[in-house]
Amino acid sequence: MRKAVAAFEAGIKLGALFHQFVGVPVSEKNVEILEKAMESCLRLQPYVIEAEVKIERQKLRTSKFGYTSLSPDILRARVIVDFEGERVEAVLEWDEELNYPLMKLRNL
Amino acid sequence: MRKAVAAFEAGIKLGALFHQFVGVPVSEKNVEILEKAMESCLRLQPYVIEAEVKIERQKLRTSKFGYTSLSPDILRARVIVDFEGERVEAVLEWDEELNYPLMKLRNL
Amino acid sequence: MRKAVAAFEAGIKLGALFHQFVGVPVSEKNVEILEKAMESCLRLQPYVIEAEVKIERQKLRTSKFGYTSLSPDILRARVIVDFEGERVEAVLEWDEELNYPLMKLRNL
Amino acid sequence: MRKAVAAFEAGIKLGALFHQFVGVPVSEKNVEILEKAMESCLRLQPYVIEAEVKIERQKLRTSKFGYTSLSPDILRARVIVDFEGERVEAVLEWDEELNYPLMKLRNL
Repeated sequence: MRKAVAAFEAGIKLGALFHQFVGVPVSEKNVEILEKAMESCLRLQPYVIEAEVKIERQKLRTSKFGYTSLSPDILRARVIVDFEGERVEAVLEWDEELNYPLMKLRNL
Repeated sequence: MRKAVAAFEAGIKLGALFHQFVGVPVSEKNVEILEKAMESCLRLQPYVIEAEVKIERQKLRTSKFGYTSLSPDILRARVIVDFEGERVEAVLEWDEELNYPLMKLRNL
Repeated sequence: MRKAVAAFEAGIKLGALFHQFVGVPVSEKNVEILEKAMESCLRLQPYVIEAEVKIERQKLRTSKFGYTSLSPDILRARVIVDFEGERVEAVLEWDEELNYPLMKLRNL
Repeated sequence: MRKAVAAFEAGIKLGALFHQFVGVPVSEKNVEILEKAMESCLRLQPYVIEAEVKIERQKLRTSKFGYTSLSPDILRARVIVDFEGERVEAVLEWDEELNYPLMKLRNL
């Protein structure tokens, strides 16, 4: 049951990250500060003990105006949640085959 | 383990709902269509078998312009997720004491 | 000067629409209610007298899970703002050449 | 006419900022990096020559979990846009009397 709660909390964090930040203006100029700000938002939330966000620079196709909107296919994240001693690791990664930003639990 | 996955999926849905829609312009005029649109977004997502969204009309304090931005304290949601036969119910409710939009699993 | 204010207000509405709703789960099942909800949000805001939102159905490429996230290339909107008798029409349209969700004033 | 375009562009930026970032987790721990990330997003966008974002620390009432969601009443921003030599300054400020996050052009 603590395992389920930990998994629930991890799901909240990834769902929140994706839907808060998709659409944000990004280019090589601010990609690093955006990643750090996104990580800071993950870390503030309850039970998070580790958080990592990566925006894939090599897939950053910018418009003629020199930037783009953050899209699901260039966003990766990893979060570790600890709920009363029960740990869960979860990741968000673009899945080319599914054409989908897949979120999953690791090492269950 | 299926229980944890179901809980994870439920967490994703509530985190997504909150962070996608907080800030949206709302008044008595569009509160119903917003609720329905939000429910439709929950239902599209994998493993969701039931979804309900409520914006608390009696707490809708509008500005001088006749509407407000959707804030965490007036949003409630409930979702039921089924992952390979394992069901989980989760809710989002404003908790006055915590001053926080609490998401939790029910009947674990 | 009223013209500039009307243009400013139109810009607010389109910027708001884009950044509030990009990322929202969408498929053929909820595209219509989403459009209507988005229009309702535009209409609530000050000085808006007409609003139209279109999500391009023929470009709705869904994932294996039967839906996608609303992306900038499938979103179109049009808004008419009236500030003290001065009217402005503005549109949001994906520009293939610029690879950009272009917002512009019409018939200035 | 260039004045109206500059005003339109300024409106886009403030509407975008508000609706992209309202709801983001914030506390004293990440308020500074959030401000900088938000400013970086403003500066990426066309015609912006200056941008400033302030989250009011003294009004940051956190929940029992030590943070809150960014709400309209604690967000301030200022942007200067230059369109073909025509400059416009616009601000976003919470207006207590209107109970509204007012965006306005300055020194028109």
